[in-house]
Amino acid sequence: MTPDTRAREFDAADPLGHFRARFRLPEGVIYLDGNSLGALPKATPGTLARVVESEWGDGLIRSWNDANWFDMAARVGAKIAPLIGARPNEVIACDSTSVNLFKLIAAALAMRPGRKAVLSEPGNFPTDLYMIAGLEAQGLAQRRLAPREQLAAALDGDVALLMLTHAHYKTGALHDMAALTRAAHDAGALVLWDLSHSTGALPVDLDAVGADFAVGCGYKYLCGGPGAPAFAFVAEQHQAELQQPLTGWFGHAAPFAFSDDYAGAAGIERLQCGTPPVLGLAALEVGVDLIAEIGVDRLYAKSQALSEFFLESLMAHDVALDLVSPPRAADRGSQLSFRHPQAYAICQALIARGVIGDFRAPDVLRLGFAPAYLSFADMAAAARHIAEVLASGEWQREEFNQRAAVT
Amino acid sequence: MTPDTRAREFDAADPLGHFRARFRLPEGVIYLDGNSLGALPKATPGTLARVVESEWGDGLIRSWNDANWFDMAARVGAKIAPLIGARPNEVIACDSTSVNLFKLIAAALAMRPGRKAVLSEPGNFPTDLYMIAGLEAQGLAQRRLAPREQLAAALDGDVALLMLTHAHYKTGALHDMAALTRAAHDAGALVLWDLSHSTGALPVDLDAVGADFAVGCGYKYLCGGPGAPAFAFVAEQHQAELQQPLTGWFGHAAPFAFSDDYAGAAGIERLQCGTPPVLGLAALEVGVDLIAEIGVDRLYAKSQALSEFFLESLMAHDVALDLVSPPRAADRGSQLSFRHPQAYAICQALIARGVIGDFRAPDVLRLGFAPAYLSFADMAAAARHIAEVLASGEWQREEFNQRAAVT
Repeated sequence: MTPDTRAREFDAADPLGHFRARFRLPEGVIYLDGNSLGALPKATPGTLARVVESEWGDGLIRSWNDANWFDMAARVGAKIAPLIGARPNEVIACDSTSVNLFKLIAAALAMRPGRKAVLSEPGNFPTDLYMIAGLEAQGLAQRRLAPREQLAAALDGDVALLMLTHAHYKTGALHDMAALTRAAHDAGALVLWDLSHSTGALPVDLDAVGADFAVGCGYKYLCGGPGAPAFAFVAEQHQAELQQPLTGWFGHAAPFAFSDDYAGAAGIERLQCGTPPVLGLAALEVGVDLIAEIGVDRLYAKSQALSEFFLESLMAHDVALDLVSPPRAADRGSQLSFRHPQAYAICQALIARGVIGDFRAPDVLRLGFAPAYLSFADMAAAARHIAEVLASGEWQREEFNQRAAVT
Repeated sequence: MTPDTRAREFDAADPLGHFRARFRLPEGVIYLDGNSLGALPKATPGTLARVVESEWGDGLIRSWNDANWFDMAARVGAKIAPLIGARPNEVIACDSTSVNLFKLIAAALAMRPGRKAVLSEPGNFPTDLYMIAGLEAQGLAQRRLAPREQLAAALDGDVALLMLTHAHYKTGALHDMAALTRAAHDAGALVLWDLSHSTGALPVDLDAVGADFAVGCGYKYLCGGPGAPAFAFVAEQHQAELQQPLTGWFGHAAPFAFSDDYAGAAGIERLQCGTPPVLGLAALEVGVDLIAEIGVDRLYAKSQALSEFFLESLMAHDVALDLVSPPRAADRGSQLSFRHPQAYAICQALIARGVIGDFRAPDVLRLGFAPAYLSFADMAAAARHIAEVLASGEWQREEFNQRAAVT
């Protein structure tokens, strides 16, 4: 049986197949980059038009009350919470992932006086590592990196925080959240999980593993749009003592009392800083609502089936690529990454065929499988395109070897 | 001659009168709160629809290059620059005003080792004062407040930074930017100007006064929409040595090299932190383009004429309110504020009549005059409504005395 035949059978039996129609996907495109920027929900333009024309245009300043803009950050956070095993009052949607990392790294350092080390792994997503640099220059933190198999051993009495990304951005490899959280706590450290490559595709259970902090991205599997607001999680038991340094007026207990002195809000609202980005939050809410409607468990099951079928399809075409993702579906996020010295040009040649994947420097072709809108037919077709690009050598064309600004 | 007759003459002669048609303003509303949330430019919904449907929906991840999302923050910043007397490479649009304050306060402290004091005035906009609190809790800053007439005397050798708002949010009173910048520099301190209540309504000349840093708001006179991205200014001569603590990947010299180590971009881009909010920047750009097209000098002339005529109209109705704004137009921003023990209820009664102003705790009625879309007829009508509300005592109704969440 060919991959195409099998794909038709899988798609016919796919309980999530009809959700594809809820997204706008351009003709002729197989989109394997939803882990970088999620596709556009068809409901988003209408919602945004309403927020812009009716709430902003007609409601004007009154919409802070009348359209509940004031509560948007907490409301969207509460909707993200069940996707990551958190209580509604433990999550808020605000700022960027990077800014939220800063708040929580600094908060952890304040909770562990005498400890300065922030432990992570080399090759973690750059901004996670970079956000330690500013605190290091201020003399407040010390970055410590250890390869993942040596992380537990590196957890000594200097470590205030263990900060890791659950699903690795480049390889998709998963950390054992429960075991590492336990190890950190045993060493007296706190834990911050970056869920950017998990939320909306993989089940995560922050409260069950006893996580202290987490952050995540709104524009990948949550389909919130380019540069969407991010989210932050603080376990309920830490909220009362939480000191985060971005002490802006929207995190104040009474922002509109206009007092001169800062007093943080009682709950997760303390994590807010400036005025919330209403347009960005409105778009994010549409994506979160849709992903929540589909359901994380069903998304995860389909994600695993898609990537397994994609590997089968590559084999059926006799494509032998160097897989850098974990071979077992249970050990990886919703992606497959392959190492090839010409990964950049191959990625460009695929994009020219409408198969949009991602290049990750220096030599990785990364294919993301957003289960909300991809079909098994997409998998079969993508595998065929890869086989053809490799067999034909068309990636050697000059046009595919010129680097763009953002790759 | 009645205020209404004079208003007709003024409007007929107003060279900016036709720009009102470029904004969507609801029927029956006189909007005197454009200094809190600017009105919606009619071009914004179409631009946003194009960015969402075509650039995000169809372009997907390719739009970072093809639609120049990668350059948006610097491009919008460069468009704001001429409105505030800056060079295009000195301004970037990013994050919130609060977050940008944090970056620049911390940067100033790093540039003045041995000095910890951040000098401001009591009653400055809350978030400006609050953003010192986080750095104070980290042991990096000391807040020092002095009334405006004592600021120069408070500039001693401990002061790293003088941080003030050019046009006061509550009264509209202006600081003398040139004199205070000189005084700070003479004392070895740096200066950060908050231009939130100036940009797009008053001329500001940051380079001429020798300002070091500035921030400003995108959602007031720039009409960027609720929670629009803010902007930050760093004088060219400080950019090479600037160390700001929010060291995210979009401020990296080579974000897509994915190296483990942070290295700040050479120029103003170093002020970026996380992935830029594309939808928010797209809306902001429409507002900035429109304000730039009208021109700050013309906006300022009309702003002064509007507020003078409004005061005349109040007098014509024999309304005697306690003006807390400077009486001379040259000494204030584009607003008039009045103190009244029942300011909240009066504000609500006016809103019920379609005259939308702002209450600022505890007792200030604040009326903003956004010159891009207000007419002299609006001034005459607003003055008449105020006279009627005060004469009738209708503000005493219970419904006008119940506080909403955001006031």
